[in-house]
Amino acid sequence: MRNWLLPEYIEDVLPAEAARIETLRRTLLDLFKVHGYQYVIPPMLEYMESLITGVGHDLDLATFKVVDQLTGRLMGVRADMTPQAARIDAHLLNHQGITRLCYAGSVLRTKPDGLAQTREPLQLGAELYGHAGVASDIEIQRLLIRALQAIGIDQLHMDFSHVNIFGSLIEASQVASQLEQELYAALQSKDQSSVAALSQHLDKTTREALLHLTELNGDKSILTKAEKVLPNTAAIKEALASLSQVSTALEGLDVTVSFDLSELRGYHYHSGIVFAAYAQGYKGPLALGGRYDEVGQAFGRARSATGFSLDLRGVVTALQPAKPNMAIFAPANDDASLSVKIDSLRADGQIVIQELSGFESNLDELNCDRKLVHYNSGWHVVAIDK
Amino acid sequence: MRNWLLPEYIEDVLPAEAARIETLRRTLLDLFKVHGYQYVIPPMLEYMESLITGVGHDLDLATFKVVDQLTGRLMGVRADMTPQAARIDAHLLNHQGITRLCYAGSVLRTKPDGLAQTREPLQLGAELYGHAGVASDIEIQRLLIRALQAIGIDQLHMDFSHVNIFGSLIEASQVASQLEQELYAALQSKDQSSVAALSQHLDKTTREALLHLTELNGDKSILTKAEKVLPNTAAIKEALASLSQVSTALEGLDVTVSFDLSELRGYHYHSGIVFAAYAQGYKGPLALGGRYDEVGQAFGRARSATGFSLDLRGVVTALQPAKPNMAIFAPANDDASLSVKIDSLRADGQIVIQELSGFESNLDELNCDRKLVHYNSGWHVVAIDK
Repeated sequence: MRNWLLPEYIEDVLPAEAARIETLRRTLLDLFKVHGYQYVIPPMLEYMESLITGVGHDLDLATFKVVDQLTGRLMGVRADMTPQAARIDAHLLNHQGITRLCYAGSVLRTKPDGLAQTREPLQLGAELYGHAGVASDIEIQRLLIRALQAIGIDQLHMDFSHVNIFGSLIEASQVASQLEQELYAALQSKDQSSVAALSQHLDKTTREALLHLTELNGDKSILTKAEKVLPNTAAIKEALASLSQVSTALEGLDVTVSFDLSELRGYHYHSGIVFAAYAQGYKGPLALGGRYDEVGQAFGRARSATGFSLDLRGVVTALQPAKPNMAIFAPANDDASLSVKIDSLRADGQIVIQELSGFESNLDELNCDRKLVHYNSGWHVVAIDK
Repeated sequence: MRNWLLPEYIEDVLPAEAARIETLRRTLLDLFKVHGYQYVIPPMLEYMESLITGVGHDLDLATFKVVDQLTGRLMGVRADMTPQAARIDAHLLNHQGITRLCYAGSVLRTKPDGLAQTREPLQLGAELYGHAGVASDIEIQRLLIRALQAIGIDQLHMDFSHVNIFGSLIEASQVASQLEQELYAALQSKDQSSVAALSQHLDKTTREALLHLTELNGDKSILTKAEKVLPNTAAIKEALASLSQVSTALEGLDVTVSFDLSELRGYHYHSGIVFAAYAQGYKGPLALGGRYDEVGQAFGRARSATGFSLDLRGVVTALQPAKPNMAIFAPANDDASLSVKIDSLRADGQIVIQELSGFESNLDELNCDRKLVHYNSGWHVVAIDK
């Protein structure tokens, strides 16, 4: 076994790619900042109870577990930072009004997933707590669109759904939990014949509504269609009205919009509008988000919540490769005026690599395209002849 | 059990502190960059063999282990990024000449350690590979001093040692491994009577040299003293000459320097000059570094190596608290000229928080000290009266 081989779906990020990830990370965090989203750094490790509370079984399976030597209790390495942000909002900041938080960090998953098929996504996200109306959903969606556009992703497409449509149908018909799971899975895969089979003993209204859901996807005209074919309940009317408001609010943002009412990703912890961002060149969604008002309750303090997150490692996969940062080569020389010159170039953001005495440098490996030369009683930057 | 309690020695970093850590992180990475150090992102997870190869037992005990579901093999969550950088240099970049790398990321430790007494240090470091001379040690030491000064730490003190002094004495006397460990421990704690007892069966030269080591600490005059009292071997002469060069090279950098020849921190993997940086207000070292030429060999490719790393969470503990970033409050209003004004303020780096309709905002919680007001047919920033 060679010591330097990495586990599957685990990778080093080498200089060119790492520099680009760092640039994008800063661009996104700076954008979140000027929108009032405060950066927090949740820990890599937590007790399992707090990591997976309120967010369900899938996250449990995705989480690496370790034993705490200090207490013997089971801890997990975080697989998702969203519940951590909810915990911070609920208990540490303890604001009565609105809180906006953002974060950036590695998470680990027991199996590869997402765009990059990695077990170590670099998760960045923004979350808004304490506001229940559609206005906060729209703020979050606009922020996501601006964020992706700021890092050079164009031809953006946003797909929306609302988990309360399915949720309210299930609740009204008092569907048992096992059947709910099966219906959920069938709707997710738009498997109309399974939905028909599974719903055969349900009341006619619910059954027809569930069947309609599999076909209610497309542009905003399907919202009007949904109003006609779905039951006229308060929950469904409100859900459709919210989606319609979103559609209007995103006009003029250079993004196409679609709706898919059978999309129930994250149904187990989402509680309102959910969305996914897509773009040319990516096989799957770049970013996922939605409302999750119930998660804070697991930490003992129910707070309205909406937000999004993305894997920066996945996002960079389809961007143009970054050019290497070219450097200036300086000779090994103790001349004080050379040190002054080097310091001033570096203060301007130029990369200066000084030769180490007794070692012949390879200027190609060092990415040097210019060098410091002494003439006219001063040090000057000149191009290196290739 | 309350779900929101964190394990011991594991902490959230809340907005004020997180913003400061992010600022310092950028300052340090930017400084490393202009010195030619390329940023890399090693993974959080590796097979145990590669994580602890060449760096000894202590790191093994400090590492959280998890089982890889895909292969059944044992993986570890990194407890130190230095060996990862050595692996990247040895096998991925594969340069023949000099490579300069830097990194920043969380590492996990099974038990708390370091300045911050945390199990999740935020490790930043810079490493230089492929150069064996003292010039690269000096480059690394100067970079560390500049780095700490750049983030506002003054009254810096650097303490130096050289592991080859002890190492060459042990080798010359063919001391058995068990006794070597015991002598190492006794020297580390400057326990002269233990050193005397342990070395009683060694040859007189080695015995006297080991006893002298416990007293050879102080300013650079102890280097002259060491030359007189230690055996006149090539290894010891070279070690003392290197330390003397370091002492000269750091003059004028606004840092005090001392030497402690019985200091053997990291003796198991270090192979030359080792150093620690201290500053007013900190109980322990802020940063540790040194030469570790043997580590790359464990990855099948011996490369000269020297570098340093620090825990940014520890470093911030003694800095002045950061002031919160104050924001501008904007009313909920669809006026297009308001959007334009907000965008332009944000593009200038100002934080603008727009009110969400139907929600009375608490301006104190939002850190708003100014607001946007419409008058003279335009939107203007005015102070908020307290």
